[in-house]
Amino acid sequence: MLEMRYSPLMTDLYELTMLAGYFEKNMHLKPAVFDLFFRKNPFHGGYAIFGGLQTALNYLAGLRFSDADLAYLDSLGLFNQPFLDYLRGFSFRAQISAPPEGTVVFGGEPLVTVEGHLAEVQLVETALLNIINFQTLIATKAARVRLAADPGQVIEFGLRRAHGPDGGLHGARAAYIGGARGTSNTWAGQAFGIPVKGTHAHSWIMSFADELSAFRAYADCFPAHCILLVDTYDTLQSGIPNAITVGRELRAKGHELLGIRLDSGDLAYLSKASRQMLDAAGLSQVKIVASSDLDETIIESIRSEGGCIDIYGVGTKLATGSGPGGCSLGGVYKLVRFDGQPKLKVTSDLAKATLPDRKRLLRVVDADGQFHMDIICRQQDAVAPGDRVYDPANPARSKIVPQGVSLLEIRQPVMDHGRLLLEAESLDIMADRCADQLQRLPKGTLRLANPHIYKVAISSRLLELRKRLMEQYLGQVD
Amino acid sequence: MLEMRYSPLMTDLYELTMLAGYFEKNMHLKPAVFDLFFRKNPFHGGYAIFGGLQTALNYLAGLRFSDADLAYLDSLGLFNQPFLDYLRGFSFRAQISAPPEGTVVFGGEPLVTVEGHLAEVQLVETALLNIINFQTLIATKAARVRLAADPGQVIEFGLRRAHGPDGGLHGARAAYIGGARGTSNTWAGQAFGIPVKGTHAHSWIMSFADELSAFRAYADCFPAHCILLVDTYDTLQSGIPNAITVGRELRAKGHELLGIRLDSGDLAYLSKASRQMLDAAGLSQVKIVASSDLDETIIESIRSEGGCIDIYGVGTKLATGSGPGGCSLGGVYKLVRFDGQPKLKVTSDLAKATLPDRKRLLRVVDADGQFHMDIICRQQDAVAPGDRVYDPANPARSKIVPQGVSLLEIRQPVMDHGRLLLEAESLDIMADRCADQLQRLPKGTLRLANPHIYKVAISSRLLELRKRLMEQYLGQVD
Repeated sequence: MLEMRYSPLMTDLYELTMLAGYFEKNMHLKPAVFDLFFRKNPFHGGYAIFGGLQTALNYLAGLRFSDADLAYLDSLGLFNQPFLDYLRGFSFRAQISAPPEGTVVFGGEPLVTVEGHLAEVQLVETALLNIINFQTLIATKAARVRLAADPGQVIEFGLRRAHGPDGGLHGARAAYIGGARGTSNTWAGQAFGIPVKGTHAHSWIMSFADELSAFRAYADCFPAHCILLVDTYDTLQSGIPNAITVGRELRAKGHELLGIRLDSGDLAYLSKASRQMLDAAGLSQVKIVASSDLDETIIESIRSEGGCIDIYGVGTKLATGSGPGGCSLGGVYKLVRFDGQPKLKVTSDLAKATLPDRKRLLRVVDADGQFHMDIICRQQDAVAPGDRVYDPANPARSKIVPQGVSLLEIRQPVMDHGRLLLEAESLDIMADRCADQLQRLPKGTLRLANPHIYKVAISSRLLELRKRLMEQYLGQVD
Repeated sequence: MLEMRYSPLMTDLYELTMLAGYFEKNMHLKPAVFDLFFRKNPFHGGYAIFGGLQTALNYLAGLRFSDADLAYLDSLGLFNQPFLDYLRGFSFRAQISAPPEGTVVFGGEPLVTVEGHLAEVQLVETALLNIINFQTLIATKAARVRLAADPGQVIEFGLRRAHGPDGGLHGARAAYIGGARGTSNTWAGQAFGIPVKGTHAHSWIMSFADELSAFRAYADCFPAHCILLVDTYDTLQSGIPNAITVGRELRAKGHELLGIRLDSGDLAYLSKASRQMLDAAGLSQVKIVASSDLDETIIESIRSEGGCIDIYGVGTKLATGSGPGGCSLGGVYKLVRFDGQPKLKVTSDLAKATLPDRKRLLRVVDADGQFHMDIICRQQDAVAPGDRVYDPANPARSKIVPQGVSLLEIRQPVMDHGRLLLEAESLDIMADRCADQLQRLPKGTLRLANPHIYKVAISSRLLELRKRLMEQYLGQVD
């Protein structure tokens, strides 16, 4: 099967109780706008890679409550028949704007904006957050790992440690967008056309009388796709010498050994020693694949010691998006406009205050295509070179938009009245977008630790609106 | 919909290439035994809670390759027609032994043992690891959180941060086994009968003219299920006074306010102050619910400061199993017997050596029902009080099994020839088993940090077998 079906009940119960309340109070058809955003880049890093949109849009476009769903809701004793009848006829008809997947994005930026009836835009909060949070997390992790490995390639190997089957499936999707060039997950290959990679495990070696017999048997079965795992007994004493024997035998039969895989030990040292032994044996075409609890930091350290690894198989930490700051992206979904009025969640901490109303997200790009900063403005604002823009967390800090730059819209309408507006992009286009945009960032933004903070500013009119609304709310409470 | 279908292609490609190799070499029907185990308890903790078995068994029982699956595999150019024909007729017919879900287990113990033809037992490695690793991780996290909160209740609130829809669905299942008493995830309620909980978000408050109107509207819609979120503007100045007003109004109409929810700020302080205000207003029945990036450590700290929280809504860190050591369980799946011979993965580090052959897993239980240690022995071994048993990582350390104890089998056959042997248990039985077993452990084992290490020993005959096989392999290599 190619698709998983996600239930319309994939939602926190409170979305449904709120919906029932709005329905009861006849507020459910009032117009509302929500923004999905996260506050901090994952992994204490300098950026994030937006992912999961197509998965989310497919879910929204097909969202219908079945009889079984309604019977279950009825059984909870919380909902009356008119509301259940309303759900029976429910379909998602709202508008959505978002960046295309693979776009480089930053904390504080409105990513997905959902505009429609209060009922429908509230209902989908949990599902949207779930899908976008997860895939954005993994795409970002993949980008970090890819940049650390570059020009070495990254293959995603994490299905056995991913959070359930679908975590593995859509994790592989997101990893590909972020820069992994393949996956071990055959299902992801089938579902998304991602190149699948893999050879054998230690158990293959242990199922034969000795390592050389196991290598020969594998080469015999897959002469054109042969990568040998060399660390079952002793990498340099046994694995590499046996791989060289089999590499020569393959060549005599008109094939070439593609690679060897290291899966334990000191990968910097073993890869250098293996490279030397293979080269000395005339097998310089043999690629060195490494796996063993890798992540971007370990890859950076292997490379700083001169490790000779061509392909990095990255499993657990990529598939689970583990790193500094945990293994989750803290995306939130906040009401920014309701019933014709801009809205704001009040807080004494400016850094946590939401940005009210419909907005645009602009990227300041210079003549060389380099990204300078992003600007958030009200939908109707014009922002141009020469304008002053402000740090939303500390408006005393401001900047002038330089002359000679372009201001490009990062987001586009992707859904209207619940209908998909665009053809589904291929994952390759998303992956190319990601790779292209990353190299347009200020260099220090890509640093793994303590990166340069890419500027995200707000327009003067958005700043004024926020200030006015804050004063208004605080006046009410006092 | 109630079930997700997982593809038979949910496997690392190398399982399939190995299978094709075994098929080619006519080894695929040879008998083999694999053990699934993890080396270290998650979260640097003293134990783990076994979960995911029923999910895995359902998958295995239904594993069939469709025409579309076979066409995809054919398109890879790796597999020949006889092998694809073999897959077309494939079904899983092996035997499986495992503990029931909710069992307390420990690093180094064989959990799931799969015995059958080499082909079928190798093929399912990735899927078994994926499902068991994830649900065991989350069940363990839930148990830690529940013990920290006890007698306060824990509700799982993490769908929006879980790793995809299915990560949220089966994460809720595992959290319930480990001790969460409910979930916000409506889908998990429908699929597994878990009690669903929830009220409203900040956006409900912001959709009304003011907080009191919002509270009144909610109480009006759900007079018998009313929990009010009190931190939108100012918890003690606005939220609690308004909740008290509505609590009194509800009482006048014959209902009672069920609770208030705190979602930000200093939860220890705010819960104490809220409790005082509610009690002073005659609303001592009102429960205090708290959420806000909670985990077992934060809950322990709130309680040590005298916080008055009745119900903890635990989201991100429960649903993603985050904590010390990352957010994954490092379960592995190793060949322990092949073609009639015990097998072992050789390593110079005894702590990492596998335990060869078919085995039993016994729990030493005293007359009071307390657990003393676990013992791993060969299938045919008899272990009894008075026998000496050994630390597998350091056999110089040994212990005598005390007199007067019982030795109980932890595992049971759960599948034979691919057929499920047992009726599916209810999640309540699993959760009760977990709670019961946790209180039979030595007290220090439950400590969050630096726990007492529960002893897992091996029998003298298993120790001898491992020693003999190690010498045999090392003799071969020299």
